[in-house]
Amino acid sequence: MKLLSPEELERALRDIGAKRYHRLHPFHAMLHGGKCSKGQVQAWALNRYYYQAMIPIKDASLIARCDDSAVRREWRSRLVDHDGEHEGEGGIARWLKLTDGLGLERGYVTSLRGLLPGTRFAVEAYVNFVREKTLLEAIASSLTEMFSPVIISERMTGMLANYDFVTRETLSYFDKRPPQARRDADFALSYVKQNARTPEQQQAALAALEFKCGVLWTMLDVLDHAYVSPKHVPPGAFVPEDH
Amino acid sequence: MKLLSPEELERALRDIGAKRYHRLHPFHAMLHGGKCSKGQVQAWALNRYYYQAMIPIKDASLIARCDDSAVRREWRSRLVDHDGEHEGEGGIARWLKLTDGLGLERGYVTSLRGLLPGTRFAVEAYVNFVREKTLLEAIASSLTEMFSPVIISERMTGMLANYDFVTRETLSYFDKRPPQARRDADFALSYVKQNARTPEQQQAALAALEFKCGVLWTMLDVLDHAYVSPKHVPPGAFVPEDH
Repeated sequence: MKLLSPEELERALRDIGAKRYHRLHPFHAMLHGGKCSKGQVQAWALNRYYYQAMIPIKDASLIARCDDSAVRREWRSRLVDHDGEHEGEGGIARWLKLTDGLGLERGYVTSLRGLLPGTRFAVEAYVNFVREKTLLEAIASSLTEMFSPVIISERMTGMLANYDFVTRETLSYFDKRPPQARRDADFALSYVKQNARTPEQQQAALAALEFKCGVLWTMLDVLDHAYVSPKHVPPGAFVPEDH
Repeated sequence: MKLLSPEELERALRDIGAKRYHRLHPFHAMLHGGKCSKGQVQAWALNRYYYQAMIPIKDASLIARCDDSAVRREWRSRLVDHDGEHEGEGGIARWLKLTDGLGLERGYVTSLRGLLPGTRFAVEAYVNFVREKTLLEAIASSLTEMFSPVIISERMTGMLANYDFVTRETLSYFDKRPPQARRDADFALSYVKQNARTPEQQQAALAALEFKCGVLWTMLDVLDHAYVSPKHVPPGAFVPEDH
């Protein structure tokens, strides 16, 4: 292990995204290319809801273990983005507009009864990682946001063009995210470049981003297995009408 | 929710096994029926190694939060079963005989480098469940052992009959397990029947067993997805030679 310059570290982080970010997963090509049935889109939105719902828990866990007021203050904006200022606002509420628009009953979605166990385990692994690893690793694990503006723009265009059951209104979550993600990723990347000062810290930051790519990838693997091929839904999980 | 008699509770627990235990997963039919390639058996053993390796961590976590000396003493035998009395003994060491026998390099197996991320998340979800839930739920989550003697006997017979790369020696793990599992399951079942005294506690115990069935099931789902259909290995995970 050698010490990387901040620019080399950034390149190595971006390289992980180029190889492991879930934009490369076949399910996303299906989703964005209009190849999903409505039931498959429902299953995706239902499972992804749990990820959205846990993001503020994850971010508050990070703030809770951070002894730097400036970092805590900066990170707080993520809580606002997801929970909003008032009832019905924020990213989680906008995600529920999507599940509403897809015809899923809201109480069923938020009860998590139909969730794939694999989704639950992957999301909880992310929250626990942020609780238990170093602050540097917790921050580095958020860096998948460096890669999200591209996937979100592909998703908006692809889903609007290809599905008559999707409207701009139901996709309002994605309208808001790219500038938030860019701001967050800029802060986190600059933190990691400044604070990963030994080869060990740099390797830990790279491993944290690999770990997080594994979380997002596994969420699509379990979705694909249950609803695309071989369409093998685990006992108790959501079964779409068109399954 | 009504209060169940201890016998009704036991029936409800056994009914969960009948519907959700991973013996029902198609991967097990393949594995035991001789339909797996050597690479698929390797991938199963490699991933399942992590489960085996974490079992004493899980059991020590349970002992660590238990204020009843009699329960702690009883539970301690599980540590002995898995870690043995001396180097090279116990369930983990016997599992490594299996991975050795399958031609996997031991350092690679124990490094966990080839592990599917979904295996990691499922196993860690189990350990965290035992750390964080009530003692009753932690004990109830072990009750999949009620169902394991049958699956183990099917596995021994099926694997010995169907794979020339498997020997009785490499399967020594499974020789030892059934009497241990029976003793452990008897104790845990009797604990749960005695200590789940309200409808809420009984429902929590049932949910704990459902959760644990989901852990084992998801481990096979991610394995199946990566190595059987659609054989889509996540970035960085083990790729068998015959994949």
